[in-house]
Amino acid sequence: MHSLHAVIMAGGSGTRFWPASRALRPKQFLPLAAGRPLIEATMTRLEGLVAPEHVWVATNKKQARSLARLLPNLRHDRLILEPEARDTAPCVALATATVGSRDAEATMIVLPADHLIEPTAEFQAMLRHGIELASDGETLVTFGIKPTFAATGFGYVECGAAVAGGKGACHVARFREKPDRATAEQFVRQGNFLWNSGIFVWQVKAIRRAMALADKDLAAATDAMLLSLQKPEGRVKKSTFAQAPKKSIDFAVMEKADKAVVVPATVRWDDVGSFPALGSVQPPDAAGNVAVLAEGSSHIALDARDNIVYAEGPRTVATFGVSGLVVVAVGDAVLVCPRDKANDLKALVEHLRANGRDDLL
Amino acid sequence: MHSLHAVIMAGGSGTRFWPASRALRPKQFLPLAAGRPLIEATMTRLEGLVAPEHVWVATNKKQARSLARLLPNLRHDRLILEPEARDTAPCVALATATVGSRDAEATMIVLPADHLIEPTAEFQAMLRHGIELASDGETLVTFGIKPTFAATGFGYVECGAAVAGGKGACHVARFREKPDRATAEQFVRQGNFLWNSGIFVWQVKAIRRAMALADKDLAAATDAMLLSLQKPEGRVKKSTFAQAPKKSIDFAVMEKADKAVVVPATVRWDDVGSFPALGSVQPPDAAGNVAVLAEGSSHIALDARDNIVYAEGPRTVATFGVSGLVVVAVGDAVLVCPRDKANDLKALVEHLRANGRDDLL
Repeated sequence: MHSLHAVIMAGGSGTRFWPASRALRPKQFLPLAAGRPLIEATMTRLEGLVAPEHVWVATNKKQARSLARLLPNLRHDRLILEPEARDTAPCVALATATVGSRDAEATMIVLPADHLIEPTAEFQAMLRHGIELASDGETLVTFGIKPTFAATGFGYVECGAAVAGGKGACHVARFREKPDRATAEQFVRQGNFLWNSGIFVWQVKAIRRAMALADKDLAAATDAMLLSLQKPEGRVKKSTFAQAPKKSIDFAVMEKADKAVVVPATVRWDDVGSFPALGSVQPPDAAGNVAVLAEGSSHIALDARDNIVYAEGPRTVATFGVSGLVVVAVGDAVLVCPRDKANDLKALVEHLRANGRDDLL
Repeated sequence: MHSLHAVIMAGGSGTRFWPASRALRPKQFLPLAAGRPLIEATMTRLEGLVAPEHVWVATNKKQARSLARLLPNLRHDRLILEPEARDTAPCVALATATVGSRDAEATMIVLPADHLIEPTAEFQAMLRHGIELASDGETLVTFGIKPTFAATGFGYVECGAAVAGGKGACHVARFREKPDRATAEQFVRQGNFLWNSGIFVWQVKAIRRAMALADKDLAAATDAMLLSLQKPEGRVKKSTFAQAPKKSIDFAVMEKADKAVVVPATVRWDDVGSFPALGSVQPPDAAGNVAVLAEGSSHIALDARDNIVYAEGPRTVATFGVSGLVVVAVGDAVLVCPRDKANDLKALVEHLRANGRDDLL
């Protein structure tokens, strides 16, 4: 049995949950997993499946210190430091080089830090299924969540033919970015579309083989990084990392791979993409108000309906006679916007940047 | 020349500006006078007219300590402590007894702590006019502001016949509580209605005489308080204070007095009755947003119109895509409500009380 590693991808620009999230405190830091940070819950979810010393966190240098503070159980040498924030393909390249420099035969789980997934037993069973499918040393496995509604906020994976003996797995036909309403409804009607979980399982040699077939530059960058890390005290230079094309691993490799399969999963899953998704974190009350309250904060609602409230610190948010709003209150900032504007917070963050308010980013 | 005293009435329950105002931090504490507390500006506005040692502040025992902290220049023995919060008639009774025990021939200015008035020179000229009218030792003087619009948020004074030789002053016909829209428009059309400023000038003997004619209980309570205070180390018992009927001085005495006159004034005046009145404190920006920002707070507006923002502390309020809201952010609480609900904050405060949130009152 070769070693099993997990690489948690923990980057993120911190714009979609502003002002709760910031450049140095992206979404995975927020206490959205039953009051605990999402990334902490992600690590806990792997316990019993992956040995603690084989759990890695990939992040950028700026966030490394605060991550280390947040995760005291994570060994310092298990942080994979991306020299700059690029897309997921460069992150996977560096992760593959890091794990591959320790065990060229290793199996890797690659997963986002900031999703909500329950229950853990079902999640681990799903991963074991993927590990089994990847055991041929060539197959790339991803996981798709059976849609429960026509979501426009998630990407989709289109399933092709069933994998022979794959226990429900099928070949990946295509990845689809977030669809519009009509397209999402069509996806759900067709039945062969799954929500793209962004979780992968493969062996080091399988992803290296697939990169070589799908994207020569990415493969070359991975080879160069591996060479650097195989040297004693070796490290990856920024210039080497920058050779990896700024693409997503879905489109750069998965979609082009000859052996990419998707495992349908029925775990309760949400990528918590923006404030309105907090309804997945905390069910609405009778008036439709969702309140996610951290650190002793509280919410008082009077004649208020369908609002999303997020608060931190010993602080009370009172919503009085308002509906359909997002209200966020943290130590140094308060945000008020309509729910349907909350998916566009990037525009506000850009406005802050343009106005020299880097102190708030 | 007999002595001239000023008594600043500084009670207030702190509901209409919640959460900025609280029971122990009513409106006059808020930094609404060019960044300074309203009561501090009220004291400053009397400088040069009233000797500092003749400026008194009437308040209740609960607020006394925080008032003393806010006004280091106010001598401790110039605080008039009301044994309980009653209406303005009991406050005037105690003030009259306090000043009268020092100088039975004194002239008193009685004025609210929490109004915005500009310019000071015109305000003092207005008071001097009143002092002159009161110099007969019998006339009670109040001041009415010439309406600039059909306000429904202010009380009105109806002017009767002109005072002979009164330089524009007229006899008080009636006091009118806050009118509805149609009545307010009629008042403005008629032209003989002025906004009730709640400011008075009279001599001690004049108000005592008027009380004796208009309200025997109030007069008796004042006499009893005066008797208490004329004793060495004398103080007014709660039971004595409670003998004064819980009425406003307007209706208990002024309206019934045979010699009550009103001086029309053109000072810029606002009683800053609720958050929407903050437009008088800080002019709206081009998008109609009013932001009153204390202690280094800031406001960021994007696609936001006609909002009222009040913030304290090193804190940023971001309004994004919203309009017609009141957003208040202070250390331990945030309020979001529509502008037209802001006049009804008492309901929210009662809701907090009913839910055991006395910590927020």
